Amino acid sequence: MTDAMRLHTQLRGKIEMTARVPVKNSRDMALAYTPGVAEPCLEIQQDYTKSFELTRRWNTVAVITDGTAVLGLGDIGPEAGMPVMEGKCVLFKEFGGIDAIPLCLRTKDVDELVRTIYLLSGSFGGINLEDISAPRCFEVERRLKEICDIPVFHDDQHGTAVVVGAALLNAVRLTGRPMDTLRVVISGAGSAGCAIARHLLRMGVRDIILSDKCGLLCMGDDTLSPAHRDMAAITNPRHVTGTLADAMAGADVFIGVSAGNIVSKDMVRSMAERPIVFAMANPVPEIAPDDARAAGAYVIGTGRSDFPNQINNVLAFPGIFRGALDVRAAQINDDMQLAASRAIAALVADNELTPEYILPKAFDPRIGPAVAAAVAEEARRTGEARI
Amino acid sequence: MTDAMRLHTQLRGKIEMTARVPVKNSRDMALAYTPGVAEPCLEIQQDYTKSFELTRRWNTVAVITDGTAVLGLGDIGPEAGMPVMEGKCVLFKEFGGIDAIPLCLRTKDVDELVRTIYLLSGSFGGINLEDISAPRCFEVERRLKEICDIPVFHDDQHGTAVVVGAALLNAVRLTGRPMDTLRVVISGAGSAGCAIARHLLRMGVRDIILSDKCGLLCMGDDTLSPAHRDMAAITNPRHVTGTLADAMAGADVFIGVSAGNIVSKDMVRSMAERPIVFAMANPVPEIAPDDARAAGAYVIGTGRSDFPNQINNVLAFPGIFRGALDVRAAQINDDMQLAASRAIAALVADNELTPEYILPKAFDPRIGPAVAAAVAEEARRTGEARI
Repeated sequence: MTDAMRLHTQLRGKIEMTARVPVKNSRDMALAYTPGVAEPCLEIQQDYTKSFELTRRWNTVAVITDGTAVLGLGDIGPEAGMPVMEGKCVLFKEFGGIDAIPLCLRTKDVDELVRTIYLLSGSFGGINLEDISAPRCFEVERRLKEICDIPVFHDDQHGTAVVVGAALLNAVRLTGRPMDTLRVVISGAGSAGCAIARHLLRMGVRDIILSDKCGLLCMGDDTLSPAHRDMAAITNPRHVTGTLADAMAGADVFIGVSAGNIVSKDMVRSMAERPIVFAMANPVPEIAPDDARAAGAYVIGTGRSDFPNQINNVLAFPGIFRGALDVRAAQINDDMQLAASRAIAALVADNELTPEYILPKAFDPRIGPAVAAAVAEEARRTGEARI
Repeated sequence: MTDAMRLHTQLRGKIEMTARVPVKNSRDMALAYTPGVAEPCLEIQQDYTKSFELTRRWNTVAVITDGTAVLGLGDIGPEAGMPVMEGKCVLFKEFGGIDAIPLCLRTKDVDELVRTIYLLSGSFGGINLEDISAPRCFEVERRLKEICDIPVFHDDQHGTAVVVGAALLNAVRLTGRPMDTLRVVISGAGSAGCAIARHLLRMGVRDIILSDKCGLLCMGDDTLSPAHRDMAAITNPRHVTGTLADAMAGADVFIGVSAGNIVSKDMVRSMAERPIVFAMANPVPEIAPDDARAAGAYVIGTGRSDFPNQINNVLAFPGIFRGALDVRAAQINDDMQLAASRAIAALVADNELTPEYILPKAFDPRIGPAVAAAVAEEARRTGEARI
């Protein structure tokens, strides 16, 4: 048995609900339960926002999946997704001080997912969508954001985008190239790839090409899905067609959220000078870091903890939700996400910045508070904060 | 500010999700989260019952309401129901060692409640329905029991019935009257009253009259709702009609789950010799215990902790769910509920039993384990146990 299986077998669950109030006698019970509890109930009935003051709602996030895109394992079903959701809840607590509750839903139907999550939303301060497959995840999130009065955040999209954004900010601090002249190629046009593209556009990048299994996303291609057509309309300004190799020729930045071993050394050699390569496929990157370096890559990041520059969502989501909850934000808007990227990047000082150190380490205790503060401030500036 | 409001204002939530595994370094993260977590996921995908071994599902119960019948406050809405649900979760943990998660749903539609709770059921080992108004609660529970593979238990019905059953078992130990000759009157034909009636019928009581605001439930009354017609078909064998006072004349047992101050001393005086009076309306009983005693009541119980013989659900639900979870019961069937009543009653020894002490105190540490053991044993005997 592996260490991971032994851990899961012995623990039988990585999270636990605990009581914050003792109930050792009748008086305790009368205060925490009946009859005393009637009073906070009536307060909330009078003013629904009091649910954020008199219950744990202010600090509670639902981590919700339908089990359709769990890790790289695909559609393994809701029950099988639970170990990941529990793990995510552990990270929410350890890195953000947030009470996260894992809910794995037994439906893949978009209408049902939206309705179910909406019906649950009065119990939570935020909704973290997780491991829902594309393109369904786009519609689920869009519709929930329209109807929910609490933040809805699909971490596979936006958490990844925020950390890639931070990595790119610091990579170009090293190369000195301005955002608006960068040529960026993103391999993988699923939930992460599309969200990264949108985030980098907001950061000022103008020339992004998205590549997926069927080729490069390009406007006018009638074979594209609606979601990809939307992306093609805002990317690939030079209308490049062909293969990933064609897109990478002359590019400054490669961002991989796709599959292992699909980028050759020659493809890296064809990039612009001192190229930036974020090969984040897990566990096998698009190109091995050593090969990327041998082919001339200047800054290399992966999704793995055993190489420098791990591009890890845990740098983002705990602090983002912490900040949003702290000001009871109505949503986690684009500006708040950009602020998170900048806050993460800023934790690497000029004199620390090297091609092997563009991101703070996951366990750097400054990250959560710094991201939370930046997100909360941006929520206030953009009018999302409600306290 | 009252003590209860101060407690709720200061705590800002009576429960908290905690991590059972440290994540202090990359190795911890690799075991509890990616990449190690993929292995338990795949195990569960192969065999869905492993979700009870590799996640916290085995010990986790959802406490679900729609906020329509919260305490005696009525339909106050889902958010306003949360303080009660959190309190219930505290009791689940303190008295049963169970991780309970409060979910307040933003719908009153029976179809939506059933579907939503079913979609959630893969994340839990049991479902505790709470404070859902009658008659909707009957259909919600019935339909969920048909489609869910985990226990579904409406505590306002069955938890109450189990404790009343225990109280009656010990009251008749004192009066010596056999169950099958008892005349019982139940005031209140909502969720609790109906469930109590069914439970007592299973215990061998034959003559039960249910009384509600419109009079006594009696077969042939076309004005009855479908739920009340079902009850009339199995109760009131002497076809008594009229008022609560008419029903109580000559009765051995009065059970009140209705409203305060609706029973007079004369009504108690009209009962059989040494009558049993359980006046459980909260906070004001159907008749004050002193008045009942003055009118000749021999055994008196209430829902209040400041009088003898508190008939409190907390004697039942933590142990019932503990026992059901321990053997991974498919449901909490009638026999398991009867076993729970007997186990609670048996905790009062012959030499302890008096009219003022027919039930163990809520904080008697023997209760949870005793109920759990009896329920688990009965689950095995009746084929509900799956481990």
